[in-house]
This record gives sequence, C-alpha cells and structure tokens, in this order.
Amino acid sequence: MTSDNVIRGVYLSDTLDLAALYDAPLGAIAEDVRVLRPEEVDDPREIRFAVCWQPGEEAFAPYPELALAMSIGAGVDALLAHPGLDDGVEIARVRDPHQADLMAGFAAHEILHHERAFETLARSAGNAHWAPLPMRAPAGVTVAILGAGTMGRAIARGMVALGFGVRVAATRCPQPPLDGVSYCWGEDALQRAAEGADYLVNVLPLTAATDNVLNSALFARLNRGAWLVQIGRGEHLVEPDLLAALDEGTLSGATLDVFRQEPLPADHPFWRDSRLRITPHIASDSLPEVVARQVVEAARAVRDGGSHRLGISRQRGY
Amino acid sequence: MTSDNVIRGVYLSDTLDLAALYDAPLGAIAEDVRVLRPEEVDDPREIRFAVCWQPGEEAFAPYPELALAMSIGAGVDALLAHPGLDDGVEIARVRDPHQADLMAGFAAHEILHHERAFETLARSAGNAHWAPLPMRAPAGVTVAILGAGTMGRAIARGMVALGFGVRVAATRCPQPPLDGVSYCWGEDALQRAAEGADYLVNVLPLTAATDNVLNSALFARLNRGAWLVQIGRGEHLVEPDLLAALDEGTLSGATLDVFRQEPLPADHPFWRDSRLRITPHIASDSLPEVVARQVVEAARAVRDGGSHRLGISRQRGY
Repeated sequence: MTSDNVIRGVYLSDTLDLAALYDAPLGAIAEDVRVLRPEEVDDPREIRFAVCWQPGEEAFAPYPELALAMSIGAGVDALLAHPGLDDGVEIARVRDPHQADLMAGFAAHEILHHERAFETLARSAGNAHWAPLPMRAPAGVTVAILGAGTMGRAIARGMVALGFGVRVAATRCPQPPLDGVSYCWGEDALQRAAEGADYLVNVLPLTAATDNVLNSALFARLNRGAWLVQIGRGEHLVEPDLLAALDEGTLSGATLDVFRQEPLPADHPFWRDSRLRITPHIASDSLPEVVARQVVEAARAVRDGGSHRLGISRQRGY
Repeated sequence: MTSDNVIRGVYLSDTLDLAALYDAPLGAIAEDVRVLRPEEVDDPREIRFAVCWQPGEEAFAPYPELALAMSIGAGVDALLAHPGLDDGVEIARVRDPHQADLMAGFAAHEILHHERAFETLARSAGNAHWAPLPMRAPAGVTVAILGAGTMGRAIARGMVALGFGVRVAATRCPQPPLDGVSYCWGEDALQRAAEGADYLVNVLPLTAATDNVLNSALFARLNRGAWLVQIGRGEHLVEPDLLAALDEGTLSGATLDVFRQEPLPADHPFWRDSRLRITPHIASDSLPEVVARQVVEAARAVRDGGSHRLGISRQRGY
C-alpha cells in the first residue's frame, strides 16, 4: 500500500482521550486510515476527517481540508451547533446496535431500582434486618418513553418484556409498531405520553423543538411521585423545574445521566441531592471495535468518493 | 346465602400474618368462603382447607376434615415434605401471572446492577467524582437460567429483550421455544447450560433431584468471576461451596433471596459479606387480589366437588 492511499484524520475532544480508546482497534483493522492527536499533525492540510466527542470551540480551525466530522456517540447536536463547522463538512455518527441494548439495560435498571425499592432493601440488609416490602404488578405501572428511534424502541421492547405498561411518544406512527406498546404522535405527543405515567424516560434527540422539553408543564402530567430517567441531553431538562417538582412531590426522584455541563462540576448541588441518582453519561457507549470499523468505513468513503450509511440530516437535526 | 353454604378455612403460617394480607381482599369478593386465624376457630372439624406459607410442624394437626392445603407462593416443597399433611389432602398453589413478571424484573435488576457496576458508580457519585466506566456489549454476555417453567421463561424473555445471550436448562425441549434462547435438556442439562456463562440464575423447583444443585461442580463450569442470582429455594445452595467459589474468584459475588432458614438469622455471616447481596425473599410475590380469587376458586371446588387449575402433582413435586 503506497502512502498516497492513506487518508488522515484527527481526534478532537475536550473531555475524552480518544486516541487511548481507538488507536488500538483502528490499527488492528486498517493501515490506510490514520487518526492523529492534534499535536501529532505535521501538515493540517492533510487532515480530511475528524473523530469527535465534545470538541472545543477552536478545535476545527486548523484544518482547511476537513470533509467529515464523525461523532462517536449517537448525539450530534454539539456538532450541528458548532460555530467552527461549516455546512460543507459532512456530519456523521457511529451507529452501534449494541448501544441501544446498553441504553435499554440502563433504563430498565433505573426503573426497577426505584420500583422495587432496592435502596430501602439495602439499608435493611446493612442492619441484618429481614424486611420484605410490598410490590405492585408491573402490568399496572406505566412507563412513558419520549423518543421512538433506535434507543426508544430498544427500551420499549425491554420494558414490555418485563411486563410493564409502555407508552412511547413518537413524531409519527412507527412502522412496524412494537407489540404491547401504545404510541402517541402528532401535536402534544409528549404530554399525552406522560399523562398518568409512573416513569418518564427521555431519549429524544436535541433539536430546537426538544430544547427544555422536560419542564414543569410536562412533569404535571405524570402520576404524583413519578420517577424521571433522563438519558437524552442535558439541554432537555429545565433544572429549576426539576427541583420544584421534587420539592412539591410531583416527582419522587430522578436518574440523571446527562447534564448541561459535562463533566458535572464537583460543586454542583445535584451531587448532594439524595433524591437524585447521578451517573457520568454512561447509559450507553459505542464499542471501540464498532467505532473503529465505522470510522474506517466513513473515512474511506471520503477518500474514494463512495457512500456510507452513517451520515445525518442537518435539516432534521439527527 | 345460608350459613351451611359457607366453607371455612384457616390461615397457617409461622412467618407471615396472612390474615392481615388476605382478609380484606377475600371479604371483598366472597361471603361463602371464610378463612380464620387458628385462634378464631371454634370447631376444628369445620375447617376444610388451609391457606399456607411456611406452616409450623404441628399446624395441620387440629383439623381432621382438611381436604386442601393451598400455598400462596409458587413453591410447594414445604407442603410436600410436611410430616403433618397426609396424601389424602390435595396440595394446590396460587398461579399468578404477575409473579413471573416480578421475578423477571428482579433477575434483570440484579444482573444489570452487577454488569454495569452500579455500586462503583454510586461510590464515585458519593464523592462528586465523574468517573465513566467501560462496558461490554450485552450480546457477548451469557445468562444461564436453571428452570424453564413460568418463572424461567419470563426471565429468559426479559434478558433476550435486553440483548443478552440466554441459555436455559429445561427438563425437556419447551413448546414453543422462545426466540433467541438456547435450550439444554436431558442429562447434564444444568452443567451444559452453566458452561462459560457469566450469570447463573436459579429458579428450579425444589425436588429430590434439585436439592444441593448449586455446588462447586456447577460453579466450576461458569466463566471465572461469574455472578449467581439465587431465587429458587435455600436448599438448592450448598453454602460452603458458595463461600469457596467466592474465595477462589470462581464467583465474584451473588444475590441471595432465599435461604435454608428464613428469615435469615440476624447473626448469619451472609449479612456481613460484602460479596453478597441479601434480599428477604422478595424476588416475587403473589398479589393479594389474585391470591384471594384463587383461594375462593379452590375452596368452592372442594365444597362443590368441582375442579380447579391450581393443583400440583405430588409425584412430580411441582
């Protein structure tokens, strides 16, 4: 393989050491696709693509020949809104089928953890105290899922299989719909899905239409004492509305995995609020081998002028 | 309704206040079926059935006309082995479809809790420390389920929906088999199901053939560092073998919900073993309304000589 056949990219992230994650799986599968740390780049004009996770404001500036920005996660809102990325640069994302399974497992755990009162059980066990608790039939418990994409579908499938009542808010009627799921679409779909629900799981993409969508008006639709599982984007959540809902008892608690600022600063009051379960954006993850394969696929398409299945729509926003 | 149409039963339990659980739902649905606490019984010859949960050794002795002993839980081993219950007394159990959903949710929670390292995440969160952890694709993780009855089937369905690899040990090939599940049956079915598994979930009935089945030989088949979810019966588990497997690293930990002695005594060392998660026999429960309906159904069948679907086979043992 001659060196002029090699396409070069750059890792761009303010929060993750992408080279540590992906150098090994990339090196194992392709000699013709090389990804460098910014400090390793000799000639920025040679860089044709970027592998991104929360890139800094000036991250793209040095690379005049950039043709592709690829997100290692499902959310591309940060790339779409990035002031340094002009319309000529294609945006793509890794699409990892395992990601949806991981997300479904995280949501199921958080729902079951609250539903079956595992914190109370752990406290009793810590005191060597045998204290069974009453439980209710899952069929009488409603889980409302906001978002009917790959993630929402996987979560719905899991919760249906575990016997829960499941309602999904979608932009249109999904084809094919999942057995055992009630769908809400069209105007006020989110409000109708939330009506009387015991759990609210957010996996919406972040767009102009979904910004601040987790707010007092939506929480007011839920069953009193409902639990929120926030695994979409930090910008979906109106934080003062969450705190008000917790204070009023509208919500009994929430699992928060995503935040307006990540990492969540050590002095943020969320960390010390016993009604919240805080996790560090780990509801799901792209597997390094899958990321490597798809980076190679998209980079080769840029080099060879071919097509790939990883692009997103700038207009739709996901 | 005349009083001679009323059939009378008795609550028999050493560990639960059954009257507190079932008097209200029974009273709400039937005037012709009355269940009394032992101390409320004037004439023991009037008692034709017993509603049971862990009845004492002498519990049945006062009632010469007993025709039916009904377990409020799925396990009837304690009734089958009871020295005070002769072959002429029919044994039945509540069959609650919600019970299997509850069991599936409990198993899913315990598997996900370990798989996704929620204890480690909670410790980091307690220190306001943002510390993502690596994760593996559920498709590469094998859950072995011992038992293919209603419970095993519900657990398998849930774990398949969450993307895990699922293997089930059955006595025969189930009809219909579940999509996505590998079945092992016939000789050494348990050993073959356990081979290389990352999680071992026990929901076998307790019979002479399954006594002490969770032992060193079975643990040795698992992937090193596997996790046990013990939600069958306490007598399935050889406790010294569990401790040896934990000490050697064959198992990294276990969830124990059932025990040879229940309630687990406060001085039992299991409570203080950080490798164990102890819960008070709450993996699943019969719902009081379902228990009440089925007690009424079985009691009326005794009175009227009719049939019901709740009896078990003494020969099979479940």
